[in-house]
Amino acid sequence: MIFDIEVKISLKHGMLNPEATTIERSLDLLGYKVKNAKTVDIIKFQMEGEDREVIRENVIDMCERLLCNPVIHDYKITVIPQNSACGV
Amino acid sequence: MIFDIEVKISLKHGMLNPEATTIERSLDLLGYKVKNAKTVDIIKFQMEGEDREVIRENVIDMCERLLCNPVIHDYKITVIPQNSACGV
Repeated sequence: MIFDIEVKISLKHGMLNPEATTIERSLDLLGYKVKNAKTVDIIKFQMEGEDREVIRENVIDMCERLLCNPVIHDYKITVIPQNSACGV
Repeated sequence: MIFDIEVKISLKHGMLNPEATTIERSLDLLGYKVKNAKTVDIIKFQMEGEDREVIRENVIDMCERLLCNPVIHDYKITVIPQNSACGV
């Protein structure tokens, strides 16, 4: 069974986000007034397995070991069996 | 009126994504078998204005001029009036 996995990575509340600050400032220079800019990264991939919970545990491990920096990042994991939307 | 804006930026179909390739390879070295890795960037911000359509036009301009590279990126814009979820 193939699972579609989505990991949403954002900076923890209160962390400085230089990327967002730069975007805000550059848009301002172009004449667009925006505020509260934030950036979120999404990593999507597929994994094969039988049990959704086992897959989720694996993805948590991946986040802690490689995908995120747990000190500064929050992450949100979504695991969806492929084709589940159409009931297959 | 304040609008919450979300711009979802992904690479066009067929473009090479070195970031995703690196993630896939690194996860493989750690012993996790994943495939079809993709990355998506989200930029969120707020703008003040009266008309949702005007805001959307502005955000399209921002994407074309600064946020995306229209040659290699697809983008999807969501404009939501703040607090609309609770009917205010």
